Amino acid sequence: RTLRIGLIPGDGIGREVIPAGRRILESLPSSLNLKFNFVDLEAGYDTFKKTGSALPDKTVETLKKECDGALFGAVSSPSTKVAGYSSPIVALRKKLDLYANVRPVKTTIGSSNGNPIDLVIVRENTEDLYVKEEKTYDGPDGKVAEAIKRISERASSRISTIAGEIALRRQKIRSAAPTSIRDQPMVTITHKSNVLSQTDGLFRETARKALAANKFSSVLVEEQIVDSMVYKLFRQPEYYDVIVAPNLYGDILSDGAAALVGSLGLVPSANVGDNFAIGEPCHGSAPDIEGQNIANPIATLRSVALMLEFLGEEAAAAKIYAAVDGNLDAGKFLSPDMGGKASTTEVLEDVLKRL
Amino acid sequence: RTLRIGLIPGDGIGREVIPAGRRILESLPSSLNLKFNFVDLEAGYDTFKKTGSALPDKTVETLKKECDGALFGAVSSPSTKVAGYSSPIVALRKKLDLYANVRPVKTTIGSSNGNPIDLVIVRENTEDLYVKEEKTYDGPDGKVAEAIKRISERASSRISTIAGEIALRRQKIRSAAPTSIRDQPMVTITHKSNVLSQTDGLFRETARKALAANKFSSVLVEEQIVDSMVYKLFRQPEYYDVIVAPNLYGDILSDGAAALVGSLGLVPSANVGDNFAIGEPCHGSAPDIEGQNIANPIATLRSVALMLEFLGEEAAAAKIYAAVDGNLDAGKFLSPDMGGKASTTEVLEDVLKRL
Ligand SMILES: CC(C)[C@H](C(=O)O)[C@@H](O)C(=O)O
Ligand SMILES: CC(C)[C@H](C(=O)O)[C@@H](O)C(=O)O
Repeated sequence: RTLRIGLIPGDGIGREVIPAGRRILESLPSSLNLKFNFVDLEAGYDTFKKTGSALPDKTVETLKKECDGALFGAVSSPSTKVAGYSSPIVALRKKLDLYANVRPVKTTIGSSNGNPIDLVIVRENTEDLYVKEEKTYDGPDGKVAEAIKRISERASSRISTIAGEIALRRQKIRSAAPTSIRDQPMVTITHKSNVLSQTDGLFRETARKALAANKFSSVLVEEQIVDSMVYKLFRQPEYYDVIVAPNLYGDILSDGAAALVGSLGLVPSANVGDNFAIGEPCHGSAPDIEGQNIANPIATLRSVALMLEFLGEEAAAAKIYAAVDGNLDAGKFLSPDMGGKASTTEVLEDVLKRL
Repeated sequence: RTLRIGLIPGDGIGREVIPAGRRILESLPSSLNLKFNFVDLEAGYDTFKKTGSALPDKTVETLKKECDGALFGAVSSPSTKVAGYSSPIVALRKKLDLYANVRPVKTTIGSSNGNPIDLVIVRENTEDLYVKEEKTYDGPDGKVAEAIKRISERASSRISTIAGEIALRRQKIRSAAPTSIRDQPMVTITHKSNVLSQTDGLFRETARKALAANKFSSVLVEEQIVDSMVYKLFRQPEYYDVIVAPNLYGDILSDGAAALVGSLGLVPSANVGDNFAIGEPCHGSAPDIEGQNIANPIATLRSVALMLEFLGEEAAAAKIYAAVDGNLDAGKFLSPDMGGKASTTEVLEDVLKRL
């Protein structure tokens, strides 16, 4: 099988980690029978400054017509408001209807000093406040701005269904590892329906309904108000399996969970639609360390694996996960964010050796 | 001076901790020359079940006409949607225009095993998604619900001003303690203006403007996108001083910060307006431990102190803080959430002895 992969480095360290993502795909063992065609594509703040658009039509069209999946690096935001600029990744998620943002957070055997964390945040990726419908008007005491938070039954239902499916798939993988402490898949629904009874209330009810489907009868379903969720996530992270949340809460929770495993440089994500997946490291463009070859490539390498999983290539994904875990457990080639001294290239080479 | 204090226990453990709050006020040394008149008031889910209203008019009227401040315990939310029920504390904040929710989070000398945490979250308390303007309609694929997030220049400006004032006041207190590591007051503005350029953009710009006032020339002003803020809060909590945030982010950040100091049972808050303050522990009504006399009263005792501070009684507040810190540092009478075995009453008595 040949997969066509769009490469969108974006800004800052995106340009250092996306090439690492390409390298690992090219280095997969030939026994997997996978070939890749790569297409270089533009997006980001630098692209905006050059072309007037942060997400050129050509990028979207090429992804739609010529690609099976893509890797997205990171983009810088202007530090003050710039007319016409708006985040390309948010637009891309909507234009390709990549409705699920999947963010697994785990400790490896070597790195955890308490109970091992192994959870995944499944974030709705198309609506909530991210519809970006805003207006500003003059009030009696100065300006007033309003934004719309939109929650639909359709989006809440499909994100909850994919969360349930991920819980079942995780359980299947775990049951092959007899040391697992968790014996039942679990989905925790996050919301703030004690304040937002209609919007978050709809998310909560719809999630309950979707997860009550027959195929999820083995899945334990719980819920947690978003503020308590952050509290519990920090007090008892090992308790959680799959957390499903509306867009903004998912954004916040995944950065919080990343802090628990030591570095945003470890945490991958995939933007997933019915026939397409974009792997995207959770970290930003990090202009402070740009161009120094010290960015941690692990989040990107894991994002490559996650993309492959959602493109149906689980065996290839498993190879990458194992190689990354091997690098982390050995602890010899770690980047500075992990307390090590290895360069981006050295971390990458060590992972490639373990493939 | 005689202060008239409304007591609103609410539901669950609110009924166990608010009496502790009353006791500490009654036990303040007479040298402070403070007297208190107490008024018992109703609110909460039990009140709703009894009277059809979670916040009876009488409670609001009495607070407005006969009180200088109040203590609020906690309220339970119904576990499924109940027509007509809506959170009394959210309504109270708006009705009394208590526009600032002040939430200090700190470790005491004895309890911190890393760098000491000493920060305060200043949360806007009247608008954002808490305006609760929602509607539901039928879309092409099922129901759709919308909520309005409203951010005004006026509310953003006054919350930022009070944040700056709190930073200056904290610096004054710290400068009396020569061991302090921080030599400059700092305010960190939290927002998500990379997505919400108008609403959170207005919050950010207005906060910048308010904190550029002459009287804040000694205050360092920084900003942090909310998802990064949660990440940084967990990686480097000792770095922060005052964090100012719109309502919902403030809600989430304060639970996150509470996790860092070990228990929500330690974290106080005050709902502050121009001439009124309500002390309120950050924890909920905890129905699971209700009636067992094991709830941690510390969050309430500190909320009493915080209320007194905002009513201009700083000497009385300092006495309470010192007594609470003494109890925590000694570590002999700690409630179960802190790993101890002491009852609510025993913790309270130990604190009272230290007054
Ligand atoms: C850059 C920003 C628009 C984005 C988001 O909020 O989704 C980022 O924080 C993320 O989590 O991918
Ligand atoms: C109970 C709830 C409405 C409330 C809030 O969201 O403000 C609580 O979480 C708080 O932080 O005081």
